[in-house]
Amino acid sequence: MKLAVLGAGAVGRSVAELAGDYGHTVTALADSASAVVDADGIDVAAALSAKDDDGVVGEDASEAALDADYDVLVEATPTTLGDAQPGFGHVETALERDRHVVLANKGPVAERYDEVRDLERESAGRVRFEATVAGAIPVLGTVEDYGPGKISAARGILNGTANFILTRMAAEGLGYEHVLAEAQDMGVAEADPTFDVEGIDAALKCVILANVLGQGERTYTRADAEIDGITEVPGSALELAHEDGRTIRLIGEVTSEGVRVGPRLIPEHADLAVSGTTNIVQLETENAGRLNLSGRGAGGPETASAVLADVNRLPNR
Amino acid sequence: MKLAVLGAGAVGRSVAELAGDYGHTVTALADSASAVVDADGIDVAAALSAKDDDGVVGEDASEAALDADYDVLVEATPTTLGDAQPGFGHVETALERDRHVVLANKGPVAERYDEVRDLERESAGRVRFEATVAGAIPVLGTVEDYGPGKISAARGILNGTANFILTRMAAEGLGYEHVLAEAQDMGVAEADPTFDVEGIDAALKCVILANVLGQGERTYTRADAEIDGITEVPGSALELAHEDGRTIRLIGEVTSEGVRVGPRLIPEHADLAVSGTTNIVQLETENAGRLNLSGRGAGGPETASAVLADVNRLPNR
Repeated sequence: MKLAVLGAGAVGRSVAELAGDYGHTVTALADSASAVVDADGIDVAAALSAKDDDGVVGEDASEAALDADYDVLVEATPTTLGDAQPGFGHVETALERDRHVVLANKGPVAERYDEVRDLERESAGRVRFEATVAGAIPVLGTVEDYGPGKISAARGILNGTANFILTRMAAEGLGYEHVLAEAQDMGVAEADPTFDVEGIDAALKCVILANVLGQGERTYTRADAEIDGITEVPGSALELAHEDGRTIRLIGEVTSEGVRVGPRLIPEHADLAVSGTTNIVQLETENAGRLNLSGRGAGGPETASAVLADVNRLPNR
Repeated sequence: MKLAVLGAGAVGRSVAELAGDYGHTVTALADSASAVVDADGIDVAAALSAKDDDGVVGEDASEAALDADYDVLVEATPTTLGDAQPGFGHVETALERDRHVVLANKGPVAERYDEVRDLERESAGRVRFEATVAGAIPVLGTVEDYGPGKISAARGILNGTANFILTRMAAEGLGYEHVLAEAQDMGVAEADPTFDVEGIDAALKCVILANVLGQGERTYTRADAEIDGITEVPGSALELAHEDGRTIRLIGEVTSEGVRVGPRLIPEHADLAVSGTTNIVQLETENAGRLNLSGRGAGGPETASAVLADVNRLPNR
């Protein structure tokens, strides 16, 4: 299929680089300031070199990518809250053109799920967003395969940065600020880690999962989630937990009660207690007990794999 | 869709019982000696009562189910080796009628994969078999979503009976024969546990996975697998392993080197070291690192969930 890729960060770059290997053609690539468009397929390597060397992917205005010839719009611009713009507008434009949309950007399906589904109903295009929940881990595809109403609840570790920090604090007996600085040095935490350490990123993923499990009967936004982060977890709490065979992890939960994210005490060797930047999702099924799915929840090629799995599931246009 | 269910053991019964809840109609159900057929939908509860009370599901001959009006043949008769009959013949008949086939029976895709794929190419029907590998765990669907050639290897624990026995031996310091008898009393092991404890069941699942990963370029049968069971694992080996922070599990491996199943030493708290009857599959992906998928690998409703997920993925006829 022909893909237009919006966003030239780690995920957008990886999607563009890997698309050919999956049998697809990239007909447009855009960052916030520029675009390159070619209905026969852009030169991805040249565009990414231009981005590295000159800060732009091509000569066209960014909006040109939205008008390009494509079957699937891959929305991989940064997640924004509230009105989820400009991502939401990109989804709207593609669906109005009867094109498919695959999201890596969490904003539109976390903050404006109802509206996205309404637009999809009016369109010949479909919207998929496996990449928005736990990166490479096939969570939403599994929920879809199990069928409507067959997953009753979910819980998991959905933020690798917060999990890395808690794992290091527990293993090394170090304080939060120390480990955060170390994680920033290693590139595991961003310069502004707010989204990760305050639980917002994990909450957005849980909200998206809750929207899918709610089957349109009930929808959620970030405002519906109860969110606590890890910034107030003292090293002494991890030591006390360890003495009792337990540890502390930032757990997201989606149940019929709603969406909650916060630090929780769990057994040290529980399935849920994954280490480092690993993510895990546990799904409670109606007929098949609990499923545990774990792996890499972030990263360019990892998230791009989920985007391309979504493309693989779309009907041909 | 209209389902004809062959086999009225735990899996066939559960498929028949759950199908309505997934929006499907059961138009035929057969055991080895009888069948009940109704193009408008059989009375599943009555057929299963008749099976319990009189030993037959209905008045018709077993073969009548193959001639029934259906979109999908669900093959849930017992796995047989070698020529994989009568399962293979059922697959052949359905595909020749341009009907879809969903397998819970491992025989046809473990022992005669090439032939099944050849028949499928000549048919308008498709063949799916998620239920044959690790029950409720979405292994083959994940491989399919990742795309051709994107999973390089797999390993895992694919037999709950053998894992239960090793887990109990390690936890209680008991010998193999003692724990086997206990497992038989609990219904976790069958009266004749050969398939499970000799590694044959796990090997068949690995062979099927190897066939899928081989993309038709290379195919496997049980004869290609190197298979060791757990009957010779002494309790003392588990004790020695524990002293070193390790344990022994029956591990199946699928790599470019081929298929191997045997008892292996692994770290006690490794992801792979699941307990009791739990199964786990680790997939090595090309672009997204390792995925761990764990859950229930057997059981009627659990395996039926995988069958119905396959039905969900089939194109409408």
